[in-house]
Amino acid sequence: MSAASDCPLCRPEAHEATTTRVAGHAQLRVVRVLDAPGFPAYYRVIWNDHVAELTDLSSSDRARCLDAVCTVERVLRNGASPTKVNLASLGNVVPHLHWHVIARFDWDSHFPQPIWGTAQRPPDPARLAALNGALTRIDDAMAKALT
Amino acid sequence: MSAASDCPLCRPEAHEATTTRVAGHAQLRVVRVLDAPGFPAYYRVIWNDHVAELTDLSSSDRARCLDAVCTVERVLRNGASPTKVNLASLGNVVPHLHWHVIARFDWDSHFPQPIWGTAQRPPDPARLAALNGALTRIDDAMAKALT
Repeated sequence: MSAASDCPLCRPEAHEATTTRVAGHAQLRVVRVLDAPGFPAYYRVIWNDHVAELTDLSSSDRARCLDAVCTVERVLRNGASPTKVNLASLGNVVPHLHWHVIARFDWDSHFPQPIWGTAQRPPDPARLAALNGALTRIDDAMAKALT
Repeated sequence: MSAASDCPLCRPEAHEATTTRVAGHAQLRVVRVLDAPGFPAYYRVIWNDHVAELTDLSSSDRARCLDAVCTVERVLRNGASPTKVNLASLGNVVPHLHWHVIARFDWDSHFPQPIWGTAQRPPDPARLAALNGALTRIDDAMAKALT
């Protein structure tokens, strides 16, 4: 397995405080993001090897990675009925292949802007609390679907 | 083919002024985005049928769509040597499956922020002109790779 000594995604313990692990195997892991409180149903699919771009993977590895992204999307759609799912592989800050998979809602603070854009309205505490209450069930379904 | 009467991506002529068509076939088309001048090497892979989410596609259609995304990424890497390629399927404004594939550079106005984030510096006219000068060659290589 290739790793880079200065890469935080090569050291899972480096992001333990800001994510919770949902599932994983030798090639990839799925975590839920804890430090974006306006977007509770926010997951990341992290490829374990240190590669920067999707096209650095072989076609079979790429299919495996994207199958996991789709599984996360499917569980989010079933468990949270989002207005839209946002998928993104950016990696400008940490160039180690990881996918953001985010359930978006027409009531969330930034919709229809990307979560990296400008807030459109204040957060909605009641709806956020309801969504937070569904996360354990979603995490469990995701772990099951990813095994 | 399914289409929605109020969807701009179901009417290719609705975005002729802001994009240029690079390649396409019955299932998808690839366009270059013209209305993001700070990011000249910005392409979109648009699925022709009106579906909202990646997981609305069958697994073979999904593979075909993502193969095109990877082809665009590969041609961008070869032709523009970006610092990073950004991939995103958002669709909050237009919920019709389309992928943003954007060559990002450490000198661009927003790097390392997503293009939807906050500008980090002024645009660099000389480097933008050089990149603009490479686009015809990149478009041609992309059209060839996508046939």
